Amino acid sequence: MSEIAIIGAGMMGSALAWPLADNGHGVRLVGTHLDGGIIRSCIEDRYHPRLRRRLPDGVRPYYVEQIAKALEGVDLIVSGVNSLGVHWLGRALAPLLWPGATIIAVTKGLEAGPDGELRILPDVLAGELPAPLRDQVTMAAIAGPCIAGELAGRRHSCVVFTSRRPAALKRLRAAFATSYYHVWLSTDIVGVESCAALKNAYALGVGMASGMLASAGGPDEAGAAMHNAAAALFAQSAVEMGRLVALLGGGPENVASLPGVGDQYVTCTGGRSIRLGQLLGRGLSYSQAVAEMAGETLESAYVIAQLATALPRLEERKLLRHGELPLLWVLCQVIAAGAPAKVLFDDFFRDSRLGLR
Amino acid sequence: MSEIAIIGAGMMGSALAWPLADNGHGVRLVGTHLDGGIIRSCIEDRYHPRLRRRLPDGVRPYYVEQIAKALEGVDLIVSGVNSLGVHWLGRALAPLLWPGATIIAVTKGLEAGPDGELRILPDVLAGELPAPLRDQVTMAAIAGPCIAGELAGRRHSCVVFTSRRPAALKRLRAAFATSYYHVWLSTDIVGVESCAALKNAYALGVGMASGMLASAGGPDEAGAAMHNAAAALFAQSAVEMGRLVALLGGGPENVASLPGVGDQYVTCTGGRSIRLGQLLGRGLSYSQAVAEMAGETLESAYVIAQLATALPRLEERKLLRHGELPLLWVLCQVIAAGAPAKVLFDDFFRDSRLGLR
Repeated sequence: MSEIAIIGAGMMGSALAWPLADNGHGVRLVGTHLDGGIIRSCIEDRYHPRLRRRLPDGVRPYYVEQIAKALEGVDLIVSGVNSLGVHWLGRALAPLLWPGATIIAVTKGLEAGPDGELRILPDVLAGELPAPLRDQVTMAAIAGPCIAGELAGRRHSCVVFTSRRPAALKRLRAAFATSYYHVWLSTDIVGVESCAALKNAYALGVGMASGMLASAGGPDEAGAAMHNAAAALFAQSAVEMGRLVALLGGGPENVASLPGVGDQYVTCTGGRSIRLGQLLGRGLSYSQAVAEMAGETLESAYVIAQLATALPRLEERKLLRHGELPLLWVLCQVIAAGAPAKVLFDDFFRDSRLGLR
Repeated sequence: MSEIAIIGAGMMGSALAWPLADNGHGVRLVGTHLDGGIIRSCIEDRYHPRLRRRLPDGVRPYYVEQIAKALEGVDLIVSGVNSLGVHWLGRALAPLLWPGATIIAVTKGLEAGPDGELRILPDVLAGELPAPLRDQVTMAAIAGPCIAGELAGRRHSCVVFTSRRPAALKRLRAAFATSYYHVWLSTDIVGVESCAALKNAYALGVGMASGMLASAGGPDEAGAAMHNAAAALFAQSAVEMGRLVALLGGGPENVASLPGVGDQYVTCTGGRSIRLGQLLGRGLSYSQAVAEMAGETLESAYVIAQLATALPRLEERKLLRHGELPLLWVLCQVIAAGAPAKVLFDDFFRDSRLGLR
């Protein structure tokens, strides 16, 4: 049995305490600066207010100020911060890590560099560590369809653990997997992590369909909604994800599997990405939609903003043809340029390699 | 402007009258033996009771007994029959067709032959035509995510027309495409049509998750449902569809696009395949579930029954490895052998070519 620290007491990070505790590990749940209220509730009542559940036995809550103490003697670190917290976490961990440490992250996102290169977040986090330590720390990540509240409810959840180091993956699976938390392994960290990030961006796109429906007055007198439009957006998402994953150097076979359409499917059943898409599809500008969703972490918008920075550079470098990713282009215009959401279906499925003309 | 006959006045066949009429074509809507009540309502009140809409001008309804008259001088035939009606339609058309005729079908399914070979339905229909005529008739088909009621409501719908003959495809698109009915073309009729059939089978599998939820007493006290399980089933469906499409000789790139996950996504938003899956996931046997859905056409079950016939033959012929399609195997057991639905998630994603271990 191990001692494991989870940094970030949001829903997904915290939910991982359930399989870990069920496997008999000691779990130290460390809030970030944003999680003070959650940690207080966890200490006082053993109750996680966002997951709406009592913590399992064996989980000990820590405030962010106690991070050094929380990491003392742990065997494994789980990063549960959101994409805006990755640099902070890397800097916070830098003085506390040791050679041979392993970090597994649930954070989803991509970060654009000056030449349009898109980095996966485990590499961004590692980039904050001092060079001599960096190569001695194993970075891993979790992707695949997993609503946190269902994991904490011990519902069947199927996920992918990914790392460039296969031996670490086997140890991680042994630590986490239970009868309800099913874990597959992949060494294609770029393929898996780019799917995880992109499905948030594209779920926003799928969500626009129900916003378009609301803006058209809802279902008509015979009950016709806009599921066909949502499905076309879903399909175009899969096509564009395949193109982008390949561009980033990952395996496109991830798309038609758990990290790609599997995760996108569950994301499209609800949640913030879909709600933001609905608001935009109804005709709100991005700033109006953000105001409606005040205070929420909008990972879908953050990753689209990064893609909006990268896309023009990738086109300049001839790595992408203009018009090759028409749905992502719309999303970038909406999020980064404040344009109204306008879907041109006839621009879709033009990639001749896919056989549709 | 053409004269076009639609045979089969069910929802999907009939819905195609909307884009055709909007394009100025004369449409003859011919009921089958099952559609007498629909045609009577269409004649008396210009009202389609299943689509719950008045027919567009330019659509003329015909009873099945008038089929010969309805086909006189038409430029194009649309098959709107269900998969159980394909042989009937082929035999009914045999004496009425002419060299150069074109038939485009919305029917979804596969038919197993004695050696486990799986034929797409346009080929099954053509097989009922006399040999000299067969090669002079162009077979085409429509796939992709399209709820009929939404098409008749003139909602954006994105579909694929497929045929082995590219010139025919261009003429067909010109006849059907409108500002809301977006049509792409593919000559990979086996790839597109096998996706169309398989997504019905696999949507039943995805539907089992909400049945499992109901059987577990519904969402728990913190609201945890079983969307993670549904998403894993969706992802495994995509993996298995890719394997099967390739086995049948189609292009697996259809899966992560409109004919595959796009169509499956819309099928999973509701409808008969999902409802049947829910009943089975709740623990009903197939015969109990059929009784609950009395009188409904269950395309998902029909195609699974065909696959249940084919699978053992394909394994004997070493074209498939036993255990390679674990979700389809469960579906076949449930539908063809009356077994209870039992999903073993740990059997999923085992195909090493896909990179997950």
